[in-house]
Amino acid sequence: MSIKSFHPPQRILMGPGPSDVSPRVLEAMSRPTLGHLDPVFVAMMDEMKTLLKYAFKTDNELTMPVSAPGSAGMETCFVNLVEPGDKVIVCQNGVFGGRMKENVERCGGTAVMVQDDWGRAVDPQKLEDALKAHPDAKIVAFVHAETSTGAQSDAKTLVEIAHKHGCLAIVDAVTSLGGTPLKVDEWKIDAIYSGTQKCLSSTPGLSPVSFSAAALDKVKNRKTKVQSWFMDLNLVMAYWGGSTKRAYHHTAPINALYGLHESLVILQEEGIENSWARHQRNHLALRAGLEAMGLSFVVPEADRLPQLNAISIPDGVDEAAVRSLLLSDYSLEIGAGLGAMAGKVWRIGLMGHASNPRNIRTCLAALDDVLGRMNAPIQRGVAVAAANKKLAG
Amino acid sequence: MSIKSFHPPQRILMGPGPSDVSPRVLEAMSRPTLGHLDPVFVAMMDEMKTLLKYAFKTDNELTMPVSAPGSAGMETCFVNLVEPGDKVIVCQNGVFGGRMKENVERCGGTAVMVQDDWGRAVDPQKLEDALKAHPDAKIVAFVHAETSTGAQSDAKTLVEIAHKHGCLAIVDAVTSLGGTPLKVDEWKIDAIYSGTQKCLSSTPGLSPVSFSAAALDKVKNRKTKVQSWFMDLNLVMAYWGGSTKRAYHHTAPINALYGLHESLVILQEEGIENSWARHQRNHLALRAGLEAMGLSFVVPEADRLPQLNAISIPDGVDEAAVRSLLLSDYSLEIGAGLGAMAGKVWRIGLMGHASNPRNIRTCLAALDDVLGRMNAPIQRGVAVAAANKKLAG
Repeated sequence: MSIKSFHPPQRILMGPGPSDVSPRVLEAMSRPTLGHLDPVFVAMMDEMKTLLKYAFKTDNELTMPVSAPGSAGMETCFVNLVEPGDKVIVCQNGVFGGRMKENVERCGGTAVMVQDDWGRAVDPQKLEDALKAHPDAKIVAFVHAETSTGAQSDAKTLVEIAHKHGCLAIVDAVTSLGGTPLKVDEWKIDAIYSGTQKCLSSTPGLSPVSFSAAALDKVKNRKTKVQSWFMDLNLVMAYWGGSTKRAYHHTAPINALYGLHESLVILQEEGIENSWARHQRNHLALRAGLEAMGLSFVVPEADRLPQLNAISIPDGVDEAAVRSLLLSDYSLEIGAGLGAMAGKVWRIGLMGHASNPRNIRTCLAALDDVLGRMNAPIQRGVAVAAANKKLAG
Repeated sequence: MSIKSFHPPQRILMGPGPSDVSPRVLEAMSRPTLGHLDPVFVAMMDEMKTLLKYAFKTDNELTMPVSAPGSAGMETCFVNLVEPGDKVIVCQNGVFGGRMKENVERCGGTAVMVQDDWGRAVDPQKLEDALKAHPDAKIVAFVHAETSTGAQSDAKTLVEIAHKHGCLAIVDAVTSLGGTPLKVDEWKIDAIYSGTQKCLSSTPGLSPVSFSAAALDKVKNRKTKVQSWFMDLNLVMAYWGGSTKRAYHHTAPINALYGLHESLVILQEEGIENSWARHQRNHLALRAGLEAMGLSFVVPEADRLPQLNAISIPDGVDEAAVRSLLLSDYSLEIGAGLGAMAGKVWRIGLMGHASNPRNIRTCLAALDDVLGRMNAPIQRGVAVAAANKKLAG
């Protein structure tokens, strides 16, 4: 056996995440490792919490990164808030609503599913109806920005309905945080989780979460122990909680946290509202190019996420072959469909650091070339100009 | 709010982990991020599995890093192998045996505790007696290298006893992997977990694990679903399993995996037996210096881990003040006591990249200075010479 050091190629990451990571973030990851209880590191943890509160627009004291990817952030919310026997209304309009159901059931809860079409927003009326039919429900859970389809839902309204019926609201913001308006306190969200590898443009592996006082109250007053030791907020709080004294729970992923810290500093420098506006502006430019080419969006305009563009695959085109050519000839990654949408769509991300005019132009030019070579039914030679016109305002 | 980029100081990490990280590993973390299904990344995953099999000395097909720290590796073993109602014998001789008990109980199992003194190896006879008293036990769990005390147990013998009584064996190798002999296949260990931030000298945040065919058989034939979606090996195997086709489960921590890959390449270059020998050689040199100074080990010689040296605190010395001075004046981190040993011991790690003569000399000189300034009852000016004599052979 003789395995050498691994030297990855430089990609352009325009799939559903990970997105392009800023060189500043990559460099931060390589800074000297500190101990997880080093006073200098502990001071950085306080900055991290402040930066995450800024990104989430919240004053929630328990706002921190879970030391594992977004799926573990999701599980952290469910294992802490769902007790055996609890009824949870789960609104599903894509893959990740299904994962929420799995979480509820593995916590011993009952999931009442409210189904919406994939690629559409969650229908508030259906949630209202479900809550009327299930007055004993304790929690409502939904995905703000469905990474599998590129649809966004009206989180503010859905949380209002949940609260009206005495439920706590758990919100998946994996793909929305940093890319599209998200206001945890104003919208009164009780528990929220996100990922680092989408619009924050850090590397994958951490999951920012935030919990309201009402949610924490429920966690602290559970009848049963949280089934996960690693994710039990009652224990994690000793390390990440409000006290200035930080006690060991698990060893934090120090260098990954450096990267997240740097990505949040970049977000703060840009200003979060400016970041939202940039994602929207670049989405419109990409859209102009794609539509000029004759490609069409899966999600109706009103429900569309700016940072994740799900596009129907033109008739007769081998979608996997297109992605392979984009990767080999342009070092450009776009995403395949997931779940029920596998084989039917491409997912083109414009997230965080990757949401920029250069990437839009490269992606459109590459699609023009590759689809043209495959004789796909598209309009050639027009996409980049259409995007440029939009970018010029 | 205006938070700046975070620039940590350069420490010498001689606590219980994280240990000093090689510049090669830090540089690897900053390489360009790839998608988690990129063919180039998938090829790297195969190398990672090969390298981990080498480190664990196993041919187990399911040998991979869990995408979260060692505590999550522990939980991965327990949630997959323990079903509600299962009886598990847990041998405890430090903090981490207690964490195993928490895990068993949160899985709905019954933990039968076999207690040994902290700072001593697990007594095989006590395990034998417990298994005779509990013929319905299904699993035996113990810690190979107790990070809280610096004691190592005879894993081979304990696993033999477990098997003789028809039990699977779960082994905590967080601090042993790479630093002291560990032979998963030869010792017939069924499930094992480790960490990246100890003798592998990568950054914290991942947990290498390995499962025997017998363990996987149990996982695949469970009566109940694994309570954790994130850690369910039946799902994780779609991404990390034997097939060459890798399907999305969660988004892997790409750049952290680059770091681990590099640290395993370094281990392979050195040769694992050479790494074990280096840890032992450096331990003896540190020991010579500490004993010349008049400091004493907590763990009897036969049970001592070479990579983690637990030292009694001299009478009348403010142990926290000593650690503070080492940090401020030498940028040197050593560990405090944990659990029942808090305030009673220091834990001096010589792990992975940190296990080298320069660190030994720096640590001894720094202790000589700081303890001297605090008028501790030590012999001054002799420690480094004693270590040098040992290092010279």
